[in-house]
Amino acid sequence: MTITITAFERSPDGGKGLARDTRVRWALEETGQPYDVRLVSFQAMKEPAHLRVHPFGQIPTFEDGDLALFETGSIVFHLAEQHAGLLPADANARARAITWMFAAVNTIEPPILELSIAKFQEGDKPWAKDRLPLVQDRIRERLRRLSARLGESEWLDGAFSAGDLMMVSVLLRVRPSGLLDEFPTLAAYVARGEARPAYQRAFAAQLAINAA
Amino acid sequence: MTITITAFERSPDGGKGLARDTRVRWALEETGQPYDVRLVSFQAMKEPAHLRVHPFGQIPTFEDGDLALFETGSIVFHLAEQHAGLLPADANARARAITWMFAAVNTIEPPILELSIAKFQEGDKPWAKDRLPLVQDRIRERLRRLSARLGESEWLDGAFSAGDLMMVSVLLRVRPSGLLDEFPTLAAYVARGEARPAYQRAFAAQLAINAA
Repeated sequence: MTITITAFERSPDGGKGLARDTRVRWALEETGQPYDVRLVSFQAMKEPAHLRVHPFGQIPTFEDGDLALFETGSIVFHLAEQHAGLLPADANARARAITWMFAAVNTIEPPILELSIAKFQEGDKPWAKDRLPLVQDRIRERLRRLSARLGESEWLDGAFSAGDLMMVSVLLRVRPSGLLDEFPTLAAYVARGEARPAYQRAFAAQLAINAA
Repeated sequence: MTITITAFERSPDGGKGLARDTRVRWALEETGQPYDVRLVSFQAMKEPAHLRVHPFGQIPTFEDGDLALFETGSIVFHLAEQHAGLLPADANARARAITWMFAAVNTIEPPILELSIAKFQEGDKPWAKDRLPLVQDRIRERLRRLSARLGESEWLDGAFSAGDLMMVSVLLRVRPSGLLDEFPTLAAYVARGEARPAYQRAFAAQLAINAA
């Protein structure tokens, strides 16, 4: 039985790797798992067949035999638990790596999502220009503290883990805004993530679809 | 060694149970673990001693011997993994319960956080009134789909799990806005969570501090 994930038929970013399937592809590559991809259109994402697998009508999903999952954090964690390479063996280090997975999606990503919403859903509103600096400052506050914690370390807690995979993926989404580059420590951290062969393969795979 | 968590010396909600320590207290109660609480002031949360445990200067934190964690999702998951009561034994059901934990913090909570920010950080801005309906509609879109998935079920996937604990906790934060009550299926789901003896004990414990 081969793992099947879903991805956008046409990613809104045109193949920059910012759609969430890239995170899952990356985890599949880090753990050496082959996978198939089922492409879905924006319309199909909101139809019953897809909603049965993803109740919020988004991508990616993950199917492996009888198991169907959604939420990138959950899919990446599932892969990390099943296969070597993304979670340390030491129990305390493992719990800390999982903490960074949650920090990525619940502390760092929400203000970054807010910026996407401000640009793409509220960009034409009369308040867009005056409100933007407030949204940016909320991201800066989080990045400043993340940067302070990372310091001179290569990864967030010892060896590269699923926590780094999720954090780098989330930080990549804020890079187009220029905010990431205000924190050279974090920009270098993200670059280390991107340099991993598994990330390169994941990026190339999503680009091949979107460049087609 | 006793588990120690941190909580607000004075919760901004005055004891309504919406501060994030309630989630952790609830998980501790569901799994029958005794715990101590260290109260921290808003000032102390941003000082080096606290930042060592919580790099983003928030509450709650979790300390057990050599292990220090932050992020409620991570703490609840750690408790669920160590003790019976919050995760099913079946591997696929366990993976789905974890999926709901991530859905709570990464799909449902972000638009709810946006509403808090709109009210408490941008409530005095000139755009506050005109922007509010957009923020509310983004929450409604998610609640509508969550309600459709829950349907007539008691919990999100079989027996009560850490996924429900996190989802109910996140939904409680939107109740004061009135939006939860627009979805009777979800309001009843949250009420079932609140009716659990473990939740009642957790709520009473945080209230005792804030009513003092």
